[in-house]
Amino acid sequence: MSVPTIASVKIRETIQTFQHTTPMRYATYSTKHNPTPRLGIVSGDRVTDAAALAASSWQGEAPSSLLALITAGPKAWARLANLASRTPSSDVESHAAMDIRWHAPIPRPSKNVACIGKNWAEHAREIAKSLGQEPTIPKFPVFFTKAPTTVVGPFDDVVWDPAVTQQVDWEVELAAILGRTGRNIARGDALDHVFGYTVLNDVTARDLQRSHQQFYKGKSLDTFCPMGPVVVTADEFGDPQAKSLTCRVNGVVKQQGVTGDMIYPVDAIIESLSLGMTLEAGDIIATGTPDGVGFGRTPPEFLADGDVLETAVEGIGMMRNIMRAPTGRRP
Amino acid sequence: MSVPTIASVKIRETIQTFQHTTPMRYATYSTKHNPTPRLGIVSGDRVTDAAALAASSWQGEAPSSLLALITAGPKAWARLANLASRTPSSDVESHAAMDIRWHAPIPRPSKNVACIGKNWAEHAREIAKSLGQEPTIPKFPVFFTKAPTTVVGPFDDVVWDPAVTQQVDWEVELAAILGRTGRNIARGDALDHVFGYTVLNDVTARDLQRSHQQFYKGKSLDTFCPMGPVVVTADEFGDPQAKSLTCRVNGVVKQQGVTGDMIYPVDAIIESLSLGMTLEAGDIIATGTPDGVGFGRTPPEFLADGDVLETAVEGIGMMRNIMRAPTGRRP
Repeated sequence: MSVPTIASVKIRETIQTFQHTTPMRYATYSTKHNPTPRLGIVSGDRVTDAAALAASSWQGEAPSSLLALITAGPKAWARLANLASRTPSSDVESHAAMDIRWHAPIPRPSKNVACIGKNWAEHAREIAKSLGQEPTIPKFPVFFTKAPTTVVGPFDDVVWDPAVTQQVDWEVELAAILGRTGRNIARGDALDHVFGYTVLNDVTARDLQRSHQQFYKGKSLDTFCPMGPVVVTADEFGDPQAKSLTCRVNGVVKQQGVTGDMIYPVDAIIESLSLGMTLEAGDIIATGTPDGVGFGRTPPEFLADGDVLETAVEGIGMMRNIMRAPTGRRP
Repeated sequence: MSVPTIASVKIRETIQTFQHTTPMRYATYSTKHNPTPRLGIVSGDRVTDAAALAASSWQGEAPSSLLALITAGPKAWARLANLASRTPSSDVESHAAMDIRWHAPIPRPSKNVACIGKNWAEHAREIAKSLGQEPTIPKFPVFFTKAPTTVVGPFDDVVWDPAVTQQVDWEVELAAILGRTGRNIARGDALDHVFGYTVLNDVTARDLQRSHQQFYKGKSLDTFCPMGPVVVTADEFGDPQAKSLTCRVNGVVKQQGVTGDMIYPVDAIIESLSLGMTLEAGDIIATGTPDGVGFGRTPPEFLADGDVLETAVEGIGMMRNIMRAPTGRRP
């Protein structure tokens, strides 16, 4: 066996860097015996502990969270992917998917989740109709945010308080997680700034969204942002405009869209949002929802205690969240 | 000199805890020789280094930033205030106000800055008039956010790119910085959740605010949130509804309001925003601007290269920020 020289290691790392990312599926998980959320690498139905994988050969502190990995940069991404590809999962700590708790890939974003409203023409129409307005296609992207305190895991409960809102609605979305910081990002470069993609349910209190005029409050109740189950790196995910999205409530399909129908595709969203405004590695951008939300139906439908929300994006996976009223407050 | 017993220390700490905060003025500063932003205590025209003050007697790691101090809780606040009151500034590292760089008190908030729009009736009227709409008083607070990447220091430049916006406007505001985490905070308890107050200029790109429909984008350009110069603790500040706010542009008074004219006073804002939504220690809430913004004038006035923005709140201090186009891009 030949020992690689420093020069050959450098060349290999450089090549890996230019690969942008190496195909990976990341999760944030914990176990009963170790309840600290940590980074896992998903392969089939097993989750390998990233820190355990890195332990033997990582120089410096191995990334303990997905956010730490993302901000560590492309060399760290390539190194971890390389380790994963050449290490049999039986050689390191790994768990069956059934045996772990799945957290949001980034349980605590370092700023609000950026979102875009009315990014599907049919959704813009159903919302306008419900409000008795003329449907209009936005001439510029309609950006708003959700507080970081909204984020929950892909199988956690959505806890809604009937004393706060009576109109909880679903919105399945594809979310892009940025891997590179930048401002004034040209549309042609925009997808190179994406680390990976995940599923996000932009749960919304329609009554608060309306009464407070701006969307922030109605979008920001605690637990109103399930995210996961995994982050699929950009290269594995492929064309973000060629994916289907689905939302089921109690097993009934409510939303069924394709990302090709977005008014502003992912690259245009990043270009517009980054104009004069720095977007950072780790930023989460939810890219809008197709038609079929509860508020747009005749008569309108809203979520009730015990309802089961299933949201999925092709190539990523499915989340399953149950609506719960907080203890002591029944609707 | 008698040595205090553990019991007497505990009693003293408990009393100090119930004082909520001890009157203090905090700044975040750096020097030419040590460019790391760090916590300072302002007294007159001198700034004492908090870490140097704590070095001799602090148990555990002394808070190195205002955010770290806030999240450390009331006992840490009382301990630091106690040290400051009994230590002559000549005994520890301190600097003349002129010799330091003043950073925003919290240079990097851990989530977006929460803001309220149309919180002064006269301001709601001037905005409606400019848009050719009927003036309406919001029935619920209009909440939106500014990205954490907007924050700059009280004497930093506001860098605006004429290729991104041609309509930069001023908004002097009182900002509350929370010291306690809570959800569903009753109005009567709300002010007990405030650690202190600072001045915030909610600089706004009116063209983007309008074209993107939701306010987030037009409020979130880099450098569009000067904050400072100090945080005055709640007990020193007194009644937040009895303060005057002023904004001058190139020495001319443009805004002159009193916080008593807010439609939603600080306690009502906290009650409404916290409904179903956890507000955390360190959260920053900008409480709205009085009339006199550039957009509301006839004809409208917008900021230009070299303009000098001076914003002040009674009892806190004044910020002074200069408008600059980025190098190579002249308007």
